[in-house]
Amino acid sequence: MSEIYRASTTAPVNIAVIKYWGKRDPKLNLPTNSSLSVTLSQNDLRTHTTASCSPSYPSEDTLLLNGSPQDVSGARTQACFRELRALRKELEDKDGSLPKLSSYPLKIVSENNFPTAAGLASSAAGFAALVRAIANLYELPASPTDLSRIARQGSGSACRSLFGGYVGWEQGTAQDGSDSVAFQVAPASHWPNMRAIILVVSAAKKGVSSTTGMQTTVATSSLFSARANETVPRRMKEMQEAVQNKDFESFAKTTMVDSNSFHATCLDTYPPIFYLNDVSRAAIKVVEAINAAAGKIIAAYTFDAGPNAVIYYLEENEKDVAGLFKVALGEKEGWAVQRGEAVQANSAALDKVQQDAGVAVDLLKEGVSRIILTGVGEGPVKTDESLINEKGEPVSSA
Amino acid sequence: MSEIYRASTTAPVNIAVIKYWGKRDPKLNLPTNSSLSVTLSQNDLRTHTTASCSPSYPSEDTLLLNGSPQDVSGARTQACFRELRALRKELEDKDGSLPKLSSYPLKIVSENNFPTAAGLASSAAGFAALVRAIANLYELPASPTDLSRIARQGSGSACRSLFGGYVGWEQGTAQDGSDSVAFQVAPASHWPNMRAIILVVSAAKKGVSSTTGMQTTVATSSLFSARANETVPRRMKEMQEAVQNKDFESFAKTTMVDSNSFHATCLDTYPPIFYLNDVSRAAIKVVEAINAAAGKIIAAYTFDAGPNAVIYYLEENEKDVAGLFKVALGEKEGWAVQRGEAVQANSAALDKVQQDAGVAVDLLKEGVSRIILTGVGEGPVKTDESLINEKGEPVSSA
Repeated sequence: MSEIYRASTTAPVNIAVIKYWGKRDPKLNLPTNSSLSVTLSQNDLRTHTTASCSPSYPSEDTLLLNGSPQDVSGARTQACFRELRALRKELEDKDGSLPKLSSYPLKIVSENNFPTAAGLASSAAGFAALVRAIANLYELPASPTDLSRIARQGSGSACRSLFGGYVGWEQGTAQDGSDSVAFQVAPASHWPNMRAIILVVSAAKKGVSSTTGMQTTVATSSLFSARANETVPRRMKEMQEAVQNKDFESFAKTTMVDSNSFHATCLDTYPPIFYLNDVSRAAIKVVEAINAAAGKIIAAYTFDAGPNAVIYYLEENEKDVAGLFKVALGEKEGWAVQRGEAVQANSAALDKVQQDAGVAVDLLKEGVSRIILTGVGEGPVKTDESLINEKGEPVSSA
Repeated sequence: MSEIYRASTTAPVNIAVIKYWGKRDPKLNLPTNSSLSVTLSQNDLRTHTTASCSPSYPSEDTLLLNGSPQDVSGARTQACFRELRALRKELEDKDGSLPKLSSYPLKIVSENNFPTAAGLASSAAGFAALVRAIANLYELPASPTDLSRIARQGSGSACRSLFGGYVGWEQGTAQDGSDSVAFQVAPASHWPNMRAIILVVSAAKKGVSSTTGMQTTVATSSLFSARANETVPRRMKEMQEAVQNKDFESFAKTTMVDSNSFHATCLDTYPPIFYLNDVSRAAIKVVEAINAAAGKIIAAYTFDAGPNAVIYYLEENEKDVAGLFKVALGEKEGWAVQRGEAVQANSAALDKVQQDAGVAVDLLKEGVSRIILTGVGEGPVKTDESLINEKGEPVSSA
């Protein structure tokens, strides 16, 4: 029997605080503006991927995600496979003793530790893990920056999941996308007390896909170019400074206004795109009330292309942010984990916001289906835990 | 007994299709961009105002609106009174035989033919009627343009209610606001078949006032200047052409994108301002489905600073627009009037949009409290029906 080559990694989810929206080159996933995100802890949210290859595998590349076969014939997945194989081929050409892995079919098995039903964009973690796992399999000397260039072609925001901590994605100017890569603004250890609570909103149905949506925005929004060309460049600087200085108020303010700006350009699209619903608006209202009660900004909301609220706060304010939601939302899936049990329910905090945001609290309680507690975390981590056994068969983790 | 002088007028509501949002001079109500509206028929929505003065009246100016005394000490009402008195004084100074009305206290009585509960911005009709009635009382030779300059100081959009039909408000450039006046783009007779259905949404509570809201937008939205300086000037031209050419598709498209643009800058405000709620979004969705079913644009939504949808359409498409809402919304206050009874319920039209917008139809049915059917109409009309009797006492119209 031919040898089975295997390598595994985990990769994190990231949630942007300066949003990526709009492609200047849809094929290469080159963005119209730079963006910046916080990489979230893989204890709470991660994709675990094993990449494997063997001359004995059936000739088609395959990908199994959470037990379901995925279509890998799409241009994006193909671009990642092609680029990684080309890098492996270079190594093989230089050193004839290396096994010709680039010519073997790939078998990839991937699992998320969070339910798809959570409605979290898992493509960032997914493509980051896929690229990192194949790079490990091929023993490429590629840096996270190099890999970010490849992962970007799978899913734009995936490039930011190649790094931990606070991560930028430089839009770049080169036509071939060579300078459109991720970079680490600061490692998680620089500002380790950043926390996030995700309020998962029960959405009636999936809205407009982000790929379609962002290109409609580019084509039709009259306000979009002001965002891409003026607003975001300024905010990228402000945000990097805020992270360097660990200035939460500045970080939070910029996070909130940038989320609003992004959703404003969605609304300015024709036909308009709405990702925020009344429950999302209620989350904004409650965050505003939390900050008003604190007399300063201790919580920041941000929303991706969906109604779920991600609320950033610092560990030292957990009682006034997560503690409030623990009382306000009552029993929800997500509290019964270690991090959730550690949160102290804080009725006094809820009392303070009731007058300002009583209706909003009721709406949230009704509209939020589960919560996820997490915080800033590390980039992809190599693991020996393989999702493919020695015989080349998928096995389940856990 | 001293003589009682009286004059009465009615004035219309207008709903903008290019929105006014942002003041460059809050005191003079000078806008940051031009705007354009459709004056709505006074059969359906109007303010009826009688202005009266007499040396025998108590020395304070008074205003009774729908039977309730109003505060007239505010700078805006005072500006209108002052400007109108000054014009009267000029006449009196030129012709010594004229009674000195400018020196007499004013007593004004005003009534709306629509419930305040409808949540319609009534200040436009209110100030237009107030200014027109006093101008009539003073027998001023002032043109609607002159009066629009005065009414604007009461409430910005009131200037557009001095004209019927399709009305622009030129932002002007003069510091004193002398060139910030309304003008008629076309009379109602030019394009008389323009109809509107207003879906009144039961709002939990009143949001941010438009005066506060628009100045926060000017101060904090990074996208606002692109709207005011680039987007609106272009759309003002497009809209005037659409009206001149009676080109409904162009009129409708521009109406919808401008409403979206306005609400986008509200969302881009910090803290964000939301006037649209899930019911408003449902109205947008249903209009999109109506247009998709028709294969062309036959309906256009627009939203002022609140959740109510105003949907413009042409009389010839009444069956496919109002007829659909008659079936979709079921029994609602507003159908049991002459115009409402004339609308043919159209189940076939509803069937066509059910697949695209079934959830939205349900949300609308639940969230819309009443409807108002109306259409393009005339400007202020002088009337002999007085709300003040010969003795200077308020009487009800009825």
